[in-house]
Amino acid sequence: MQVKPNIANLPAYKPGKPVEDVKRELGLTEIIKLASNENPFGCSPKAKEAIERELSGLSIYPDGAGVTLTNALAKKHGVNADQIILGDGSDEIILMLARAYLSPGDETIMADLTFSQYKHNAQVENAVIVEVPMANGKHDLPAMAARVTAKTKIIWVCNPNNPTGTIVTKNELVAFLDQVPQNVMVVLDEAYCEYIEDPTYPDGLELLPKYPNLVLLRTFSKIFGLAALRVGYGIASADIINDVNPIRPPFNTSRVGQAAAAAALEDEAFIAYCREQNKKGLQFLNAAFAEMGLTPFPAYGNFIMVDVKRSGYDVYDALLRRGIIVRAGFGANYIRITVGSQEQNEKVITALKSVLQEVEVKV
Amino acid sequence: MQVKPNIANLPAYKPGKPVEDVKRELGLTEIIKLASNENPFGCSPKAKEAIERELSGLSIYPDGAGVTLTNALAKKHGVNADQIILGDGSDEIILMLARAYLSPGDETIMADLTFSQYKHNAQVENAVIVEVPMANGKHDLPAMAARVTAKTKIIWVCNPNNPTGTIVTKNELVAFLDQVPQNVMVVLDEAYCEYIEDPTYPDGLELLPKYPNLVLLRTFSKIFGLAALRVGYGIASADIINDVNPIRPPFNTSRVGQAAAAAALEDEAFIAYCREQNKKGLQFLNAAFAEMGLTPFPAYGNFIMVDVKRSGYDVYDALLRRGIIVRAGFGANYIRITVGSQEQNEKVITALKSVLQEVEVKV
Repeated sequence: MQVKPNIANLPAYKPGKPVEDVKRELGLTEIIKLASNENPFGCSPKAKEAIERELSGLSIYPDGAGVTLTNALAKKHGVNADQIILGDGSDEIILMLARAYLSPGDETIMADLTFSQYKHNAQVENAVIVEVPMANGKHDLPAMAARVTAKTKIIWVCNPNNPTGTIVTKNELVAFLDQVPQNVMVVLDEAYCEYIEDPTYPDGLELLPKYPNLVLLRTFSKIFGLAALRVGYGIASADIINDVNPIRPPFNTSRVGQAAAAAALEDEAFIAYCREQNKKGLQFLNAAFAEMGLTPFPAYGNFIMVDVKRSGYDVYDALLRRGIIVRAGFGANYIRITVGSQEQNEKVITALKSVLQEVEVKV
Repeated sequence: MQVKPNIANLPAYKPGKPVEDVKRELGLTEIIKLASNENPFGCSPKAKEAIERELSGLSIYPDGAGVTLTNALAKKHGVNADQIILGDGSDEIILMLARAYLSPGDETIMADLTFSQYKHNAQVENAVIVEVPMANGKHDLPAMAARVTAKTKIIWVCNPNNPTGTIVTKNELVAFLDQVPQNVMVVLDEAYCEYIEDPTYPDGLELLPKYPNLVLLRTFSKIFGLAALRVGYGIASADIINDVNPIRPPFNTSRVGQAAAAAALEDEAFIAYCREQNKKGLQFLNAAFAEMGLTPFPAYGNFIMVDVKRSGYDVYDALLRRGIIVRAGFGANYIRITVGSQEQNEKVITALKSVLQEVEVKV
């Protein structure tokens, strides 16, 4: 059996170390994980109640189309239900779009430091990856538009960008969309959009009616605090959703995931609370970094990427030994930290201050 | 945006009618759904308890590799953990195998009346579908082996076969595997294997060491009663799992799904109870069909397909009006009925007797 050659060279997913293993190996009793942009405040209690209600129906397949959740989302966002597709996380929407639209040799454009699943799924489809360098941690939209050819099928824009945390503004995005041919799909990944109140931040939903080539990605894994349950969704024209739907596995989202997501969607007070706490957390971390002479990228989501002027891996390792898990690997001198609770944020800063004394500055 | 031409012609998934809608439209208070081969006895209480324990961690991503569940499965089945891959239902294992191994123009062999996802995913990959007619509702393995060419990549064998319920025996399967070239993958879908005690039924696990081209599909959606949670798995050589792993989305199974599945796996008493009840149900249904002069296919799983000598759709409709949902559409004169509880089985037979009086016999 010969696996497709373009897949043979792909790295397999490497599982992260379970928190329990880290505790045991390092002799720690407490671990703070600020590595995966999870919600430090958990999720709405309404979501848990919704799961409890589903416990009597675990043997029954989910509603494959997720009608209740889809209708709730349509109502919330002011679109039609046939403009929405649910996924096993928004990861799966990326997979479905790649599988539906990318053929071997097709070109797909993305930033050179962005969410890894765009490139991964494009590689699985044997598409040609066109990576455009970021400009100061930000998508360089004019440069991306300039790379469009007759072979371009999909352009991926992550806003705010994971891992850098930066945004493209509404004006920048509109200028870009006006320039991209309408037969090229633009996927706008808005996984963190609910955190953002900045008036320059574009709301993809407002742009959808004018740009039928636009696809929005949203998720319940971030501010809604349901990463464990794997529910994301795409919003686009009914034509696009209709084209992608045959790719969607019939029962791709779980019964408990659908129920919890629908309940979480209604709890606006919880979302407002998380947004407010996150804003305070960003302010605290930005102020602390300034005091320490470190320069973060402008952060808009629930995470912040900062130049630690030392090997990011070394700083990651030193923080790990203090029981704090962050992310390195996005550029030599950077670490990405999820905004935690105030207590967690204070602990990470205290630890980071101590670590920076210990780890040598790169010259 | 042009969707791939082979996808443009695929049917989109049509959502089934929610039970609540059926109730309202038909003015019924009770619905018996024996349409999706779900476990009428629910699931192990241990699975529900496991979910309760996860409710405090909903905001945390699942362990992507599902280490705990994978290790439990490996121990249970006497294989190494690197021989197992988890899926969002075994549907997703089918998707991953197709995506990893089938290129446009490759050939893939399957029965002409079997689980629909083999064909569907092969079509998405633009492979050439070679459908081999069933022999009396049973896979015709010699005919399938005879269709192997240099272009054949995957052969799909569903055992017991959904929807006909028949099995191929161990002798038949071994003769087939001996004939299939080792560079052709044989996928043996054993979704219903835990129901079967017949000594002629092959256990794929026993065959794995001898046939490195064999892949087994298993699921928690059937006898384990966790269809709502979407957990299935594949078992194969470590080489195959290693090849497929890059295709697996990083967090494809949920935290609650993994936890519930691991707990369900341990509850052997529940599984034994369901197996026993299912055996009694099959005996009851077979005896009733014999009394009614109807001929079912030999049934080994938790469902039975029977020739009703009338339009299957008409019988389906008439049963629906009596509040019983079965499946039609697998051959003109057939319906497929899931084995329910004794009470449900009695009700479906009573309703079917009345329906057969009402629906005209096809001549």
